Amino acid sequence: MKILRVNMGGKEGPEVSITNLGEYEGLGGRALTSAIVSKEVPPDCHPLGTENKLVIAPGLLSGSAGAMTGRISVGCKSPLTGGIKESNAGGQPAQVLARLGYAAIVLEGKPSSDNFYKILINKDGVKVETANEFRGLPNYDLIEKVKEQYGDKVACISIGTAGEMKMSAASVACTDPDMRPTRHCGRGGVGAVMGAKGVKVIILDDAGMKMREPANPEAFKEANKRWVEALRAHPVTGKGLAAYGTNVLTTIVDEAGAYPTYNFRQGRFQGAAKISGEELAKREKERGGNPTHGCHRGCVIRCSGIYNDKDGRYLTKQPEYETVWAHGGHCGIDDLDAIAMMDFLEDNYGLDTIETGVTLGIAMEAGLIKFGDAQGAINLIHEIGKGTPLGRILGNGAAVTAKVFGVDRVPVVKGQAFPAYDPRAAQGIGVTYATSTMGADHTAGYAIASNILKSGGFVDPLKPEGQVELSRNLQIATATIDSLGLCLFVAFAMLDKPEAFQAVIDMINAFCGWTWTRDDFVEYGKKILKWERDFNTRAGFCPQSDRLPRFFKTEPLPPHNTVFRVSDEELDTLFNF
Amino acid sequence: MKILRVNMGGKEGPEVSITNLGEYEGLGGRALTSAIVSKEVPPDCHPLGTENKLVIAPGLLSGSAGAMTGRISVGCKSPLTGGIKESNAGGQPAQVLARLGYAAIVLEGKPSSDNFYKILINKDGVKVETANEFRGLPNYDLIEKVKEQYGDKVACISIGTAGEMKMSAASVACTDPDMRPTRHCGRGGVGAVMGAKGVKVIILDDAGMKMREPANPEAFKEANKRWVEALRAHPVTGKGLAAYGTNVLTTIVDEAGAYPTYNFRQGRFQGAAKISGEELAKREKERGGNPTHGCHRGCVIRCSGIYNDKDGRYLTKQPEYETVWAHGGHCGIDDLDAIAMMDFLEDNYGLDTIETGVTLGIAMEAGLIKFGDAQGAINLIHEIGKGTPLGRILGNGAAVTAKVFGVDRVPVVKGQAFPAYDPRAAQGIGVTYATSTMGADHTAGYAIASNILKSGGFVDPLKPEGQVELSRNLQIATATIDSLGLCLFVAFAMLDKPEAFQAVIDMINAFCGWTWTRDDFVEYGKKILKWERDFNTRAGFCPQSDRLPRFFKTEPLPPHNTVFRVSDEELDTLFNF
Repeated sequence: MKILRVNMGGKEGPEVSITNLGEYEGLGGRALTSAIVSKEVPPDCHPLGTENKLVIAPGLLSGSAGAMTGRISVGCKSPLTGGIKESNAGGQPAQVLARLGYAAIVLEGKPSSDNFYKILINKDGVKVETANEFRGLPNYDLIEKVKEQYGDKVACISIGTAGEMKMSAASVACTDPDMRPTRHCGRGGVGAVMGAKGVKVIILDDAGMKMREPANPEAFKEANKRWVEALRAHPVTGKGLAAYGTNVLTTIVDEAGAYPTYNFRQGRFQGAAKISGEELAKREKERGGNPTHGCHRGCVIRCSGIYNDKDGRYLTKQPEYETVWAHGGHCGIDDLDAIAMMDFLEDNYGLDTIETGVTLGIAMEAGLIKFGDAQGAINLIHEIGKGTPLGRILGNGAAVTAKVFGVDRVPVVKGQAFPAYDPRAAQGIGVTYATSTMGADHTAGYAIASNILKSGGFVDPLKPEGQVELSRNLQIATATIDSLGLCLFVAFAMLDKPEAFQAVIDMINAFCGWTWTRDDFVEYGKKILKWERDFNTRAGFCPQSDRLPRFFKTEPLPPHNTVFRVSDEELDTLFNF
Repeated sequence: MKILRVNMGGKEGPEVSITNLGEYEGLGGRALTSAIVSKEVPPDCHPLGTENKLVIAPGLLSGSAGAMTGRISVGCKSPLTGGIKESNAGGQPAQVLARLGYAAIVLEGKPSSDNFYKILINKDGVKVETANEFRGLPNYDLIEKVKEQYGDKVACISIGTAGEMKMSAASVACTDPDMRPTRHCGRGGVGAVMGAKGVKVIILDDAGMKMREPANPEAFKEANKRWVEALRAHPVTGKGLAAYGTNVLTTIVDEAGAYPTYNFRQGRFQGAAKISGEELAKREKERGGNPTHGCHRGCVIRCSGIYNDKDGRYLTKQPEYETVWAHGGHCGIDDLDAIAMMDFLEDNYGLDTIETGVTLGIAMEAGLIKFGDAQGAINLIHEIGKGTPLGRILGNGAAVTAKVFGVDRVPVVKGQAFPAYDPRAAQGIGVTYATSTMGADHTAGYAIASNILKSGGFVDPLKPEGQVELSRNLQIATATIDSLGLCLFVAFAMLDKPEAFQAVIDMINAFCGWTWTRDDFVEYGKKILKWERDFNTRAGFCPQSDRLPRFFKTEPLPPHNTVFRVSDEELDTLFNF
């Protein structure tokens, strides 16, 4: 495996170089993006400046025949948080890029002109060409143009208009098996950094390339078989996610009283049933869509889906739970069609649906539109796409929008908007929001598993006890999972079934020729978190950066009427390992 | 002396209480605002929320017959920096408020309605009344309305439209002896906090009140006489400032190559002569204005002035050097009439001229208008006044504007825009920008004195040696000066003339009945800085917060082609006292 570096600031235009992994040998996905960013990017550089780097890395097992290994990590210094960022997504690019033999693409420097470029990578090598004809195209339109030129067998990594405008809520889009730009590295403004590098789209064509060969093919095949069986046997990964998608959570989290409603004013939403996963799947079936679909080759969980409009035409992929929430309960909107439209628009403009949805709620808080005004919210998303001054504000996320409009109720940590779980009724996720190197990020240590879903044991969601340990263990394990290319949902099986965890260890060893134990799995995660934490410290984060906004500690959340009670002193022990 | 507290969030409307100084005895001005903020405001509260407090305190000697004692301090947690803030101004309110017997006004809580209020303070007591008829009035228009109701002998502390909209560049305006709202506590968004408290104007009427009596009247009179003589004998305080105002600096700083031009790209501006203090004074005289005017009763330096338009009608007060620079060299504008118009507009809307001018340059950097486009810049200021989305962006300052428009060249520390001196050609001021508890603030430790003006000795501006010690000593002394109510310009005389320093010590002792030595003067300043620093640490500042933006360390500034060379390690020693 090689590292492909493209210096976008070369004197005569972009300069391509291909090197061995060298000191980065043994790293993939998040481990590789965080290693490169923490070692090569000056922590005090401007995220949109020439010294930042955008690192795109498939997981360590991506490109293999292993199930669920299709995640790709994108890393950089984040324009949203000012700290290190790793944001990962499914879709096709991880598998294709890995089969092309690249452990990472590193975009460096900054064009001196305002040209936009496309990067084509195939079996013959790498071409970087100007692509100003793509300027201003939203993701879906862009991919149509790419199809015309390169056919529909390629995989794409692209930015929409938000990324071109270097907005802090801009995502990096990855195409799915139907070549739709539906899988997004959403969080932290990674799309803005790609925009600052002047790269509109990376086109990956693995025609003529083979699946990656394990060090020990037989052992790998056997471990993978056990792995698939374990995933199929678990109720969440084998059944729940396939039936209803991630939005199965709406009913569960609302029932738990942890569903943040009207900008974190209450923990239950009257309209929850109308936007639930059950309702979503029903509607998808009725309209000829599909609630059960895999987002990448090799997926056996198949939590993604297709959402058609009233006339049975494709509208968007099945919106994720967090997307439904951000535009739903958070904004007081209970209209699935409107939410699906917003999901499409944000995928198209290239925006993080969590950050954008939370921002729309802040716009409601500021009085720009009323809570529950779905059409008003849709109009605001179009403002972002058009890049009007109002759109530029919103496209830079919740914290900036709150600041510009003088709103003092702002659910962010390290400048990044809270996802779909209220930390007052699920204290473990609050620990993750507060302490994660990524800013408020549920995927960094999904304590909802043990707080609400009773996966991996049970830790009372309303009490502070045990939450730091829970979040710490999850954050460590997640860092490794994010490095292997595994979809995070496999964690449900790994937490509950020792044989699932063992299958993963066996797959790693068979693929890489290693002799990992479970301890090595944990140590790998710790190493990554330490790199990230070290970068953040050098970038200016301090213990006070690891805090929830004050109102979560002072304002009780109905219906449980609890506040966040994990003490600052306990939070400060999270990285004691 | 009493503390007047107004809880704007009282259940039945604002609640007034008047208490003794208690633990705050012996404190005035900045010492008092910083003590109250650091002790009473939760460092993690939202600056625009109910728990922040706006503290307005005349200096310890304000209201006395002492010369130059007319400064008033406004303190709070800053919406611009997120740290503690003290911003002071001249004008009439310090003297009048002190004569009314108040050491401080503390605005607390937050109205639950969207009412705006006026606070009237006179010999009969305190009245807080709704003043929604003042809503939306810029400062000059507001003061005209106040005159109609209360006559032209009162002094006012007010916010314009920017403060009403809670913009982070919003100032608190103080009226001058001509009852014009020309003297602003500009920095750090103190006007936004006043707006969040729902207070539009504070009207101070000292009719029937007497000058404050010193503990030892004869000794005070005698010390004050020596003080005035010393000020008159120094070339800067006795002559230079009166003749040309603070804008005398344009020629000097430009000559020194430290005049930041085109958003800190070069240290000299071709148009400097056209906007110099010499040219300004000439024009003021020609048009029947006045280059020599005192901003408050008891001023003997008289650095303020009156700028008339081409037809001889009052346009604005004489713009300060930093204002002329922010709209001049920084934006590439060499048209004094345009700059004077912008000064007027910003005073009227209630905006910090430094933050706003720097922001206009960022808007130019972003391509909204071209460098040098004076009319374009004027139009943008009107956008702020109108509160359009674009105006809201700009009104929140340089860092927010840069973020919203994806600009990566941003001259701010702790979110606050750099003033008019490039730290690469005046390294001492760079130390102050980096380390001041206030964010980038030249007045916090005016190292230009010794770097360029050779006052208080000479420290080579291009070398790192000695700059930390210089800045440290100035920051300490300034904290005390800001607490006494003394105008900072007195420091030139105090630095150069032992008898001036001694006169100040004697005045303090005679007024307060103390037995201060020069050491006590220094210890008082240290104590204030420690309170401020401690608040900032608890609010989340760390060593990395005390850094200049990276480009000052990597990009040489013509004509000297120097970079900022004071090391991080040295910066971190500033508070070692």
